[in-house]
Amino acid sequence: MSALPQRFTISSRDGRARRGTLRTVHGKVQTPAFMPVGTHATVKACDPEEVAQAGAEMLLANFYHLSLRPGVELIAEMGGLHRFMGWKGSILTDSGGYQLVSLGELVDLDDSGVTFRSPYDGDTIQLTPQGVVEGQLKMGSDVIMVLDHPIPFGTSPVLSEVATRRTHLWAEQCRQIDTGEALLFGIVQGGFEVGPRAESAEWIAGLGFDGIALGGLVLGEPPQVRQHAIDACVEHLPEHLPRYVMGLGTDLDLLDAVARGVDLFDCVLPTRLARTGTVLTDRGRLSLRQARFRRDGAQLEEGCECPACARFSRAYLRHLYVAGEILAPRMLSLHNLWHLGRLMAEVRHAIEADQLQALLETRRRLLGQGAEI
Amino acid sequence: MSALPQRFTISSRDGRARRGTLRTVHGKVQTPAFMPVGTHATVKACDPEEVAQAGAEMLLANFYHLSLRPGVELIAEMGGLHRFMGWKGSILTDSGGYQLVSLGELVDLDDSGVTFRSPYDGDTIQLTPQGVVEGQLKMGSDVIMVLDHPIPFGTSPVLSEVATRRTHLWAEQCRQIDTGEALLFGIVQGGFEVGPRAESAEWIAGLGFDGIALGGLVLGEPPQVRQHAIDACVEHLPEHLPRYVMGLGTDLDLLDAVARGVDLFDCVLPTRLARTGTVLTDRGRLSLRQARFRRDGAQLEEGCECPACARFSRAYLRHLYVAGEILAPRMLSLHNLWHLGRLMAEVRHAIEADQLQALLETRRRLLGQGAEI
Repeated sequence: MSALPQRFTISSRDGRARRGTLRTVHGKVQTPAFMPVGTHATVKACDPEEVAQAGAEMLLANFYHLSLRPGVELIAEMGGLHRFMGWKGSILTDSGGYQLVSLGELVDLDDSGVTFRSPYDGDTIQLTPQGVVEGQLKMGSDVIMVLDHPIPFGTSPVLSEVATRRTHLWAEQCRQIDTGEALLFGIVQGGFEVGPRAESAEWIAGLGFDGIALGGLVLGEPPQVRQHAIDACVEHLPEHLPRYVMGLGTDLDLLDAVARGVDLFDCVLPTRLARTGTVLTDRGRLSLRQARFRRDGAQLEEGCECPACARFSRAYLRHLYVAGEILAPRMLSLHNLWHLGRLMAEVRHAIEADQLQALLETRRRLLGQGAEI
Repeated sequence: MSALPQRFTISSRDGRARRGTLRTVHGKVQTPAFMPVGTHATVKACDPEEVAQAGAEMLLANFYHLSLRPGVELIAEMGGLHRFMGWKGSILTDSGGYQLVSLGELVDLDDSGVTFRSPYDGDTIQLTPQGVVEGQLKMGSDVIMVLDHPIPFGTSPVLSEVATRRTHLWAEQCRQIDTGEALLFGIVQGGFEVGPRAESAEWIAGLGFDGIALGGLVLGEPPQVRQHAIDACVEHLPEHLPRYVMGLGTDLDLLDAVARGVDLFDCVLPTRLARTGTVLTDRGRLSLRQARFRRDGAQLEEGCECPACARFSRAYLRHLYVAGEILAPRMLSLHNLWHLGRLMAEVRHAIEADQLQALLETRRRLLGQGAEI
């Protein structure tokens, strides 16, 4: 838990939505905010200055992946994660809890922590609640995530209960650690039923973290189930703490969650879609793989001022993508990050003007029209 | 042949070396100059502004590759190659002659031209001397290369003679075409023997091109053979035309050829090496694949101000390379292009100051010391 008071302030509200400012050692983060994902200490295909120009003030890096390669000690030796990767803004580090799901049967876990084999050198590695927080601290993270145990949608209630109880135990252990100027966020689990979700939120909220994440979502559940889970949590979270839904990234999902009172988001979606030739626009997605863009001299999205739209046509970017040229994923990633950066700026302005509902309706209507007219 | 007079002026000399200025519709190119290669209308892993910042005033694109994908008509429709790829400087387009060697037995050629199967759709495609020049003109090239027939080192004298005779025939046919404001360069062949090289140079020089390329080199021959071939050509070329050795790219090869009177160069080396994790420095090459760079907090090369050196350590760039992150090839390509940009700027200053020989000796000594002290 951070030593400094008032790390999060709320300046205006619109329904349950909040317009806030999160303060870290590396600056302010205007919320609601979307964090681009830089798993391996780089937002894929982009450089740090370009990511900042897209409107990002905080990005996410992954403690689990970085601890395997290049290693926590090395990053610390190089002056910490910010200096290592040349990022001047804030960094939130995920703990590796999500990898308990994504690595599935490769991990062995009990209440003491997680044991798994490194995919790089086959070494046996142990993650403990304390070790994970201390490692993030050592890397110089601004916002540290506790170790949690998420479960995918469809897990039995018994296993779900075990994972949630373990998440609570680990949260208590993590909470004991003095993280100095770094913020420490707890993570709510509880599966996909409203009752256990609410209980988990209450439990985690009671531990006195600097912020609360809703974990274990976007793991195969229908949107409605997710929305009910978010509502059940938010109801039991204190007003003064930032709330973060992990892994959420479509335009409408972000708008919907903001309206339910969520402040922070991260997702690989904008950069991962870019690497498959897919472009986000206010009217939906375009796939440059489609032959109809072959002779299309227009920019990716009218009115967009991103480095791709300012210089290149759809025809050229499609050519680069088809030819497997590296400039393609970079330009499409930047466009997609600018798209989400612009969306979040509009969201913040809408909350200040009490117009969030109108923005949601406009956006939904635009998307309904389809990407091409 | 270009309609405009005085496209190349020489402002000073140092031995056989020349300090010149080449003028195209898109601006001046200070020579001796190195052209980065953008085969598919992009210098691999870089964007056009970054390439210009590295000191490049002209780049090379490949007519053969671009005519297959995305096609000459499409590029013309999109406003020409410059607008298509967002490059404001000059562009020299190679004709596709080199592909007669690199595609080997996939092509069928006689005096009328070349027939081959498209690797993309299997279509039969024909390149003729006239078609190749007209295609480059249509794409909006600043410097158009004639179609030629290079041969690899070790080809029999009989085949070499056939290829050279064909190159001469094609050159005459290409020379008939009015290229308006675009410059048209002839290409010398003649194999690897001094006699036929000199004859070819004399023949091509007699046709009245805007510049002369020495083709068919860097195709497996020992450096000495190449140097003698360059000398044999240069002796028979007029003083007032720019001379271009195709495909040359190591520091010492460039310096050596400049001293022999060559003005223009292109090579995939800086960007191709970058994609294998290899970095050019004044003291030789570094391979970031080596474990010794794991904890190396230094910049790639002391004193370098490229976008990689200005922000990132060897340790970070090695991490990116090992993790397969796209930022690695981009940063290493930019560093290597800056390296060659700086070398060519030094070469130009040295010629102005009558110091080329001293520069050559300094550079040779530095390289001899090895990349690491």
